[in-house]
Amino acid sequence: MDTVLLFDWILARLDRTSGEPVYRQLLSLMQQAVLTGQLAAGTKLPSSRTLATDLGIARNTVLHVYDQLSAEGYVISTTGSGTYVADTRPDAEALAPRPAACDPKAAADAPVSTFPRGGMSVRGQRLIDEAGVSAKQWGAFMPGVPDVAEFPARTWSRLQARLWKSANHDLLTYAPGGGYRPLRRALSDYLRVARSVRCTPDQIVITTGIHQSIDLTVRLLTDVGDRAWVEEPCYWGVRSVLQSSGLKLAPVPVDAEGLNPGERDLRNPPRLALVTPSHQYPLGMVMSLARRRTLLEYARQHKVWIIEDDYDSEFRYGSRPLASLQGLDDAGQVIYVGSLGKTLFPGLRIGYMVVPEHMVDAFRTGVAELYREGQLMQQAVLAEFIMDGHLTSHVRRMRALYGERRQLLIDAVTQHFGDALPVMGDEAGLHFVLGLPEGCDDRAVTAASYEAGVIVRPLASYYSGQPTRKGLLTGYACVPNEQIGPAFATLAKVIEEHAFGRAARGARSRRTA
Amino acid sequence: MDTVLLFDWILARLDRTSGEPVYRQLLSLMQQAVLTGQLAAGTKLPSSRTLATDLGIARNTVLHVYDQLSAEGYVISTTGSGTYVADTRPDAEALAPRPAACDPKAAADAPVSTFPRGGMSVRGQRLIDEAGVSAKQWGAFMPGVPDVAEFPARTWSRLQARLWKSANHDLLTYAPGGGYRPLRRALSDYLRVARSVRCTPDQIVITTGIHQSIDLTVRLLTDVGDRAWVEEPCYWGVRSVLQSSGLKLAPVPVDAEGLNPGERDLRNPPRLALVTPSHQYPLGMVMSLARRRTLLEYARQHKVWIIEDDYDSEFRYGSRPLASLQGLDDAGQVIYVGSLGKTLFPGLRIGYMVVPEHMVDAFRTGVAELYREGQLMQQAVLAEFIMDGHLTSHVRRMRALYGERRQLLIDAVTQHFGDALPVMGDEAGLHFVLGLPEGCDDRAVTAASYEAGVIVRPLASYYSGQPTRKGLLTGYACVPNEQIGPAFATLAKVIEEHAFGRAARGARSRRTA
Repeated sequence: MDTVLLFDWILARLDRTSGEPVYRQLLSLMQQAVLTGQLAAGTKLPSSRTLATDLGIARNTVLHVYDQLSAEGYVISTTGSGTYVADTRPDAEALAPRPAACDPKAAADAPVSTFPRGGMSVRGQRLIDEAGVSAKQWGAFMPGVPDVAEFPARTWSRLQARLWKSANHDLLTYAPGGGYRPLRRALSDYLRVARSVRCTPDQIVITTGIHQSIDLTVRLLTDVGDRAWVEEPCYWGVRSVLQSSGLKLAPVPVDAEGLNPGERDLRNPPRLALVTPSHQYPLGMVMSLARRRTLLEYARQHKVWIIEDDYDSEFRYGSRPLASLQGLDDAGQVIYVGSLGKTLFPGLRIGYMVVPEHMVDAFRTGVAELYREGQLMQQAVLAEFIMDGHLTSHVRRMRALYGERRQLLIDAVTQHFGDALPVMGDEAGLHFVLGLPEGCDDRAVTAASYEAGVIVRPLASYYSGQPTRKGLLTGYACVPNEQIGPAFATLAKVIEEHAFGRAARGARSRRTA
Repeated sequence: MDTVLLFDWILARLDRTSGEPVYRQLLSLMQQAVLTGQLAAGTKLPSSRTLATDLGIARNTVLHVYDQLSAEGYVISTTGSGTYVADTRPDAEALAPRPAACDPKAAADAPVSTFPRGGMSVRGQRLIDEAGVSAKQWGAFMPGVPDVAEFPARTWSRLQARLWKSANHDLLTYAPGGGYRPLRRALSDYLRVARSVRCTPDQIVITTGIHQSIDLTVRLLTDVGDRAWVEEPCYWGVRSVLQSSGLKLAPVPVDAEGLNPGERDLRNPPRLALVTPSHQYPLGMVMSLARRRTLLEYARQHKVWIIEDDYDSEFRYGSRPLASLQGLDDAGQVIYVGSLGKTLFPGLRIGYMVVPEHMVDAFRTGVAELYREGQLMQQAVLAEFIMDGHLTSHVRRMRALYGERRQLLIDAVTQHFGDALPVMGDEAGLHFVLGLPEGCDDRAVTAASYEAGVIVRPLASYYSGQPTRKGLLTGYACVPNEQIGPAFATLAKVIEEHAFGRAARGARSRRTA
């Protein structure tokens, strides 16, 4: 394309009525002309004055476009002799077809993946296929979600405004060293009293939540191909994090006393064991003291790391909160992880871990190196919130409220089903598992219930292998008291249809009528 | 220990003058007695009335302790017949020594790691050994850190207060779906105009920053053992994230035109290539248009994913910002990642990625599944901040300020060293590399300078292999104008000592005098 054609080509495309500035339009058109080869390498561009006159636009606009084209390497400007189209064609040599891996040393380096290149990876595809995360995160009976409407937002906002006003610039930078120190002190005090965790503020590392705490532990303490015990069933998020970091999962069954490894499990000590002793997730039993002591001793003998996930331990309605497993650990093998998402609000994304003293430096370096953490301002707000006593009083208030809702939901279950459907789980947490009859497909019930506007989760999706129980994770914490009955009536209809065929028969007879 | 001895043992240990409530002391003592076996399994505890009288404490306290011991499984209470110490000893059978992996199927499952069990893993140790993160994150001449004191904190705080007041509870829950939609819209508008990125709001996924964006990409698009091209030298954080996810790094040299793969590199297409085309990190050159087109075409032919890290592209002092590589990508192979940490403040932890349309669903699911993200309130504040025009005006203001500081620092360099020490890098970003003479150890200069109160970073630590250049990453953005001269004088003294031996000789002569 010579420069006369260039004028025509640009003129035909410039749209002065569109909202886009002429500068951007001209720049983009000229870039396109170079990239497609319409303006060949070496072509001399018209002077800015000529182009401006011919196109009827300001000369300054053309000058800016030429400058930008030059900065981006589309053209080369030589003082005195003018502006030329640069040779920006891809390097033919680099793109020459070459026999794959003809170099034997290079062949050894060839990627191990057998998945078609350029698409998802095997682990990526697996992650997506097995994803447990739900599109809706709120409403009856979403499990694991607290009632954020009850969060003392005004108090939080007041503390936040005060801290932003004080303009401590250190709180706006990165945060190496495991997090805001006053928050670590406040949390260690809280965990010592509330959870019998044995720790100093130095042992606390602030993270964005349980996912990150587990991820960090995995990357520091395990290698690709190592085996990890997980409870069967367990939280889907744990499986995803462990697998996508290259660990092999060894699901270990749970019974009424918690984790119950069989002979074959015991013969093959894992590198890591992930447990929820205070309140098994999702079934809700408590790990017995004998089992705790056995696990700790076994871990000591075989040098197994234990992650104790203490995810909603504050909410016990029958008795006081149970002591942590970490508090019984004399060998420094337990990594205790918790989060404030279920206590305050999920969007907060502040979690904590308590690491053994001899591992403190590694975890502090690791968290900064891998995640480049910050959010000190928010950590400072939380520290004030805890130190002013708001955490304790909020927990106390929510414990009463959630206990009430739990009871309302149980009453609704009993009213509809008598004792036909068992409520599994200790009197704790934000959900229980509503048992379904053996032949009933809990995934189908979940889907039908979602259609009807009620969220539950199928127990089946928490198993790595074949589910041994059928049930629905049913959350009561985020449902206002007056909605519990009506929402359960909707769910009950779906269950009846699937489990007992009652409404289904009814619907059939209505349709045929 | 019988119950009379129990009284004595407890009495000797109860400390009524300590701040700890008697309830907690008694509970802890009885737990200890059970755990150590001093109270043997099956022992009948004294009645609460007796124990209370003998210890001289309230009966209610003892009742609470017994309840808690029972809840935690230390004792078993039988109505009518009393309270007995439970058998909580570890399961002897589970702990029986067993021949390692006598089951052949189990042996195949044995962990692959050869690292001593129970300590750090190989990848964990490597992560810590090679960690690049610095303990100090602020001050002259910390590279890569903006001036947070200039951030319009009052504006931010005002927007934040308003949003918290409106109490939209949806903003307090988890955030599936890639982030707050108005923010994604605001960012896509911004990126289209400022960076010539081609995207719709749907293609934007909000993350906590570049680390998380890279981590997510790696887990979705690569498998353990796959090879990744990284620039040599490159940002340390990238190396750490990739390696700890099981990728093999293939460092590819850069020259004045950016990434410059050799014949051997080209013969072995990686699964992933990570580049910084707008402003190579840390050396600062711009990838030429020809190289960009070559890389895109090579990636298309060999199905290589490209991550474009556009980390501080807003700050160009000589010319307008350059267009992104993503804008040239017709094959949907570029994952564009950026962050607002360097533009606003590092502690914010909000980044974004632009993913090809056919990958949107996978990335949205992946980010929710792996990281359980939230922080919608903060995302909403940021969206308002951008939509009200504060981002653009802040960038404009900072560009002028940092440009000024860059010039002040260059003037200081010239004043001290003439042209003996080259300033490497395009006129952009928050730092430049100050070249050192070949024989000079940049790590030693860094350490000595740190001692003298000035932070720099050694270029050596950005190389995966043998460094081919010596230099110091020197940041000017977060240093008030008036401190630049004095701080550089300190640094210059250290450099003279190490590079030219001047001050060292001076010191020697003073000492011998």
